[in-house]
Amino acid sequence: MSNFKLDPRLEKDCIVLGKLNGINLLLMNNALVPWFILVPETKKIEIYELGQDEQDSLYKTICEQSLFIKSTYSIEKLNVAAIGNIVRQLHIHVVGRQKGDYCWPNVVWGTKEKQEYERNQIKGVTENIASYFGCSFKINELLVT
Amino acid sequence: MSNFKLDPRLEKDCIVLGKLNGINLLLMNNALVPWFILVPETKKIEIYELGQDEQDSLYKTICEQSLFIKSTYSIEKLNVAAIGNIVRQLHIHVVGRQKGDYCWPNVVWGTKEKQEYERNQIKGVTENIASYFGCSFKINELLVT
Repeated sequence: MSNFKLDPRLEKDCIVLGKLNGINLLLMNNALVPWFILVPETKKIEIYELGQDEQDSLYKTICEQSLFIKSTYSIEKLNVAAIGNIVRQLHIHVVGRQKGDYCWPNVVWGTKEKQEYERNQIKGVTENIASYFGCSFKINELLVT
Repeated sequence: MSNFKLDPRLEKDCIVLGKLNGINLLLMNNALVPWFILVPETKKIEIYELGQDEQDSLYKTICEQSLFIKSTYSIEKLNVAAIGNIVRQLHIHVVGRQKGDYCWPNVVWGTKEKQEYERNQIKGVTENIASYFGCSFKINELLVT
């Protein structure tokens, strides 16, 4: 979408990894859990407001990102959610959870504890994603420099 | 699915309203927010594990339930989530949120505060659903008696 601009709070809290199937793929800057956020380029706020093709593409991408997390990290359960009470821009959390992680079995939303990624960790995550998804993933050029 | 049995914790916390498109539709017994739960009859734990037809049917039903909530209640935002850290049986929360509701803008999961529905309120919710969805909704016979 032309004129699409990521919400500044998502920009502040996350690392923009690139685009997966044309949907922005963000990494929450909290290395305590594998926490990704998908941000489709739309002005719609709720998933049901998207056209059927956009919904299908979003759900396919959630599914693929879920499989990536499951295959890459040691996790017990996926948490997938569209909330948006604070940041209204449509975004979907896909989080890998593990028994004993920093807030298990509670939800991650609203927790304060975090551990920011180091530069080489971000590089590692991005490389894993690029290798897993191949040409479906377009890396954020700012990460390459 | 034959032999399907609702998780006892969902049974304890919720009222089983019936089936929407063949998917169990539950009402969280907390009148503070319109909080519904969809429970497809499957032994799979994650949405991505479902077959494509089951995923499509589930997503269609989430969309329809979202529209029902939006059209019936005064809400600001929908919260849609598959979590399952505590109850592993696949279930999807569809919650209508309003500025100033009991835990706004935080998420409802993990909150303790609640107000149980009275019998006539449950009847009202069920009638609204039956009227909105027509023959896509099959009421739980136990509610009719």
